[in-house]
Amino acid sequence: MRGSPRSAGGATRRTFLLGGAVAGVGAAAAVGLDAAVSASAQQQPSVPLNGEVTVPFHGEHQAGIDTDAQAHVALVALDLATDVDRAGLQRLMRTLTDDAARLTQGRSALADTEPELATAPARLTVTFGFGPGLVARAAAPAPSWLAPLPAFSIDRLRPEYGDGDLLLQVAADDAVTVAHATRMLLKDARAFATTRWVQHGFRRAHGTERPGTTMRNLFGQVDGTSNPVPGTPAFDDVVWVREGWLAGGTGMVVRRIAMDLDKWDRLDRPGRDQAVGRFQSTGAPLTGTDEFDEPDFGAKDAVGFPVIAEFSHLRRSRPDDTTQRIFRRGYNYDQTPPAGVVSDAGLLFVSFQADIERQFVPIQRRLDELDLLNEWTTPIGSAVFAVPPGCREGGYIGEGILS
Amino acid sequence: MRGSPRSAGGATRRTFLLGGAVAGVGAAAAVGLDAAVSASAQQQPSVPLNGEVTVPFHGEHQAGIDTDAQAHVALVALDLATDVDRAGLQRLMRTLTDDAARLTQGRSALADTEPELATAPARLTVTFGFGPGLVARAAAPAPSWLAPLPAFSIDRLRPEYGDGDLLLQVAADDAVTVAHATRMLLKDARAFATTRWVQHGFRRAHGTERPGTTMRNLFGQVDGTSNPVPGTPAFDDVVWVREGWLAGGTGMVVRRIAMDLDKWDRLDRPGRDQAVGRFQSTGAPLTGTDEFDEPDFGAKDAVGFPVIAEFSHLRRSRPDDTTQRIFRRGYNYDQTPPAGVVSDAGLLFVSFQADIERQFVPIQRRLDELDLLNEWTTPIGSAVFAVPPGCREGGYIGEGILS
Ligand code: HEM
Ligand code: HEM
Repeated sequence: MRGSPRSAGGATRRTFLLGGAVAGVGAAAAVGLDAAVSASAQQQPSVPLNGEVTVPFHGEHQAGIDTDAQAHVALVALDLATDVDRAGLQRLMRTLTDDAARLTQGRSALADTEPELATAPARLTVTFGFGPGLVARAAAPAPSWLAPLPAFSIDRLRPEYGDGDLLLQVAADDAVTVAHATRMLLKDARAFATTRWVQHGFRRAHGTERPGTTMRNLFGQVDGTSNPVPGTPAFDDVVWVREGWLAGGTGMVVRRIAMDLDKWDRLDRPGRDQAVGRFQSTGAPLTGTDEFDEPDFGAKDAVGFPVIAEFSHLRRSRPDDTTQRIFRRGYNYDQTPPAGVVSDAGLLFVSFQADIERQFVPIQRRLDELDLLNEWTTPIGSAVFAVPPGCREGGYIGEGILS
Repeated sequence: MRGSPRSAGGATRRTFLLGGAVAGVGAAAAVGLDAAVSASAQQQPSVPLNGEVTVPFHGEHQAGIDTDAQAHVALVALDLATDVDRAGLQRLMRTLTDDAARLTQGRSALADTEPELATAPARLTVTFGFGPGLVARAAAPAPSWLAPLPAFSIDRLRPEYGDGDLLLQVAADDAVTVAHATRMLLKDARAFATTRWVQHGFRRAHGTERPGTTMRNLFGQVDGTSNPVPGTPAFDDVVWVREGWLAGGTGMVVRRIAMDLDKWDRLDRPGRDQAVGRFQSTGAPLTGTDEFDEPDFGAKDAVGFPVIAEFSHLRRSRPDDTTQRIFRRGYNYDQTPPAGVVSDAGLLFVSFQADIERQFVPIQRRLDELDLLNEWTTPIGSAVFAVPPGCREGGYIGEGILS
């Protein structure tokens, strides 16, 4: 994990361009000069539009997990109506799968009253997660970790950001696309379920930074450096469930973590760097110079203290036990603050891991016990979902337990 | 105004690229093949990053008005603390101007604790508007239109989206950039003012669609077709104030208009087209085929009714008196809906015009009397600001009344 693995391995799930002409220009750019000449000759030296890029919907895994994170996300949790039985669930998931399969490919949904908004998929993905309630309703065996997380002392959970029967993770590089897709899905879900919560998040826009740049959170920190890289065996080990109806699926943790930017402001630069164990400037560990340098936890400073403090987020979150690994794929949030408060911002923490109990919980427990970052962060929402595997054309998400 | 004026005239305010290398590649792409060869030879066939594009801050007019609308906006209204006098206002506007001048050029603000978030301006603009309270506090002559709009029968105004002493319009193609810039400005304002309201809006991401494509709102309508084009004399006449301390400035109306997407869903396509007087599919008037075709209000259908109905939004909003023109530069919004509601979405209507009373109010009054679109739309917020002219380097916004 040295060097910049992100830029090499970011896109296992290949993206495609809609429309022959644009694909032609894209291809020209990829193969080099001769093709570039012909593209120029067509008087179309334009680059392919982001809006036309699609991520395949069908496959072994659902999209939106090993997909390079898009700029915008809406996370929507639904509560099933009491009268929805197994047959109802099947109808619901067939309909939503059909919507997702179409919308992600730039086609309008079946009952789409604004098909004009569906023409720019912008790498849209729709990922479904099943909460404990849905799995119980399906009378399927639930993984032991599919339950609310244990209570942590740092938690100040608000019910309006917690739990839910069915999760939709709708992500794209365009906010209008996310709004339209979310709405279409909710329209088709409304005979079966009500909205429990909606959370919006964002990262840098597509094209703002060089591909492979690790995102920064609203504290200004490089966030996501030490993360399994999609397309590597390490990623597969961390993320995908290997057996049972969830094989090819994964476990998803959603935590809404408020970040107190006002308090963070009062901390000086050395204090900030110490809290994480990495430099805010570069993201490098305090014992290194490059973002991807391995931290040296043994290194001591002049007076004999560890350079990377014991209480730093880096030291506390990094497992000694390498089976305790997770894949983080979170987003920033920044909402209208209540009166008198300068900001209501934080991290929409999202992690994927095959076994939440074995991989995520020990890390969160360690951070709960000690993590200097806790001074400035507060978990205010928490939910857990089982993310079923992908499906083939003609199939639907959840067919493993609903058919 | 036939053809597609938007693509021709969109960018009177020239944009620039940060950093020589990137600018080089950009230039190569612009001048064509020879240069493209050399760019290829440099093994850098990449396009310039959106994040590096800047809009000049200084000038005759403030940026963010004749600037091609960016993908994201935060509108923030502040209330001045009671003890802020003219000297305080001057200090406040000097500081905020300095912040804006730096941040928009990709430099960090003076007290910036997250300078790493300031490096991707992504066409950031910061536009300041003065509410009636600020102008009174400055003891400056207020234009007669600088007051809450007259009450309209369709209004259901909520105080939490209304009025304010000082408006910041922070817009960029990147949501992280908007979040950081907004926060920096609010930090520097907090000794002088409290936040009254914040409203976030979005359009298509940069690069999602071909430049010059008119935006669509969340009803799916092409919205913005008939609008003065920056860089034309018509635009200058509509937008810029000609005399007094506001010369080179303009008047700004902000209306939060809820759009009932659920009710809109139940309307069929012909009903939708009739409500506006334009086809949802293409944006063309019902008497034409191209978006920019002139509507023919005299045309009758087989049974003698006007093809573009009297009650249509197009008929009602288009002034016969050509002095009643406005420049619309609004955004979509889509928020977490309250329980049981499928969506909380609408239009962050923003218009600029030299004289709100003479140009905007008559249109709004006509729409209040009759406009089929009122069935699905409800104004829930309203505010009016005087937008001072721009300033030169070393100057500050508002110096015309504060110095
Ligand atoms: C707002 C709250 C949080 C902030 C601001 C934050 C920030 C960071 C930062 C700056 C890093 C270092 C760069 C990197 O490797 O990504 C990091 C690493 C990490 N964080 Fe967090 N984090 C937060 C919450 C959490 C939570 C709730 C967990 C899991 C329970 C977590 C688990 C990790 C892990 C596993 C690493 C990588 C450790 C390693 O192996 O080097 N973080 N975080
Ligand atoms: C949610 C509320 C609204 C929606 C959905 C809406 C939608 C539209 C649409 C689809 C058009 C036609 C395309 C175009 O020229 O842009 C239009 C035109 C227009 N609208 Fe609205 N509008 C709304 C509110 C308003 C308000 C509040 C005003 C001003 C008081 C206004 C003034 C205009 C004007 C001046 C035009 C151009 C008319 C012309 O052809 O000259 N609109 N609007």
